[in-house]
Amino acid sequence: MSAPIERHDTTARMSKIVQHNGVIYLCGQVGAGDTITEQTQDCLARVDALLEQAGSSREHILQATIWLADMSDFAAMNAVWDAWVPAGHAPARACGEAKLARTALKVEVIVTAAVK
Amino acid sequence: MSAPIERHDTTARMSKIVQHNGVIYLCGQVGAGDTITEQTQDCLARVDALLEQAGSSREHILQATIWLADMSDFAAMNAVWDAWVPAGHAPARACGEAKLARTALKVEVIVTAAVK
Amino acid sequence: MSAPIERHDTTARMSKIVQHNGVIYLCGQVGAGDTITEQTQDCLARVDALLEQAGSSREHILQATIWLADMSDFAAMNAVWDAWVPAGHAPARACGEAKLARTALKVEVIVTAAVK
Repeated sequence: MSAPIERHDTTARMSKIVQHNGVIYLCGQVGAGDTITEQTQDCLARVDALLEQAGSSREHILQATIWLADMSDFAAMNAVWDAWVPAGHAPARACGEAKLARTALKVEVIVTAAVK
Repeated sequence: MSAPIERHDTTARMSKIVQHNGVIYLCGQVGAGDTITEQTQDCLARVDALLEQAGSSREHILQATIWLADMSDFAAMNAVWDAWVPAGHAPARACGEAKLARTALKVEVIVTAAVK
Repeated sequence: MSAPIERHDTTARMSKIVQHNGVIYLCGQVGAGDTITEQTQDCLARVDALLEQAGSSREHILQATIWLADMSDFAAMNAVWDAWVPAGHAPARACGEAKLARTALKVEVIVTAAVK
């Protein structure tokens, strides 16, 4: 009774997309740029692209976990986030402070979504 | 073949409850109070209220992620947590240190649960 | 229409394994040892054992969240991780820095997997 697992953009370390039983798991997304605004915008654009590739969309996000390297970026990240979230479709969300894989990185977003 | 998504208490930023395919995702819950004991108690009371609203209960939690702003609060948080968890129904759990959205916040709990 | 919840190795605090609707949630796994290499190896051996107990395997991991107490251990953790992941079956992954429950702990891995 096992549902199949679909993986996309798979390396030795991770898959960018994993789909199972109608649920899509994205690997943690970061963004290019010098500021928290730029990085959040680029990060969420990458989320959009992966969700489209997976047959989903930002209207279908179930849960998002946001890590900020410095919680003083909370308001600036939220400004980009709030404008990006489609009205009526906001996911469950949590945000905590965690240093990321490279010191230049200010934000990482982990998304679980439903297929369309 | 997509299951419907139900969202409750939805703002421009997040939904407090998202339900999909028999699984409930709650937004990260924090609590009021000055001490880790008070905040954990209030946080878990809010989890109870949201799970009841979603047609679930603390007996149906699948996974809980706990963030403590200061890991030295681990024992005091656990004292409240262990008393709250129903015998035989403890979820998978992980606990790490992460500063939270406001400096006064000492604990945040992220819950995934099953519908009853 | 609720799917049953199966719990294994359940204490007053947590279950090591929770299964629901074809998805397995493991509690955060840490490892014994003095170095990040030893701890990562032992941690992933424990993941293997729990997944086998749950009727799954490392080929069936959907999502992994890795917490490092010190991000300077990133490369050494990845060396063990990359060798452990089965070719073509890498999960969605995210890695952030978070102090763990005991100061000796260097790595914790949180796994969600599919049943076979």
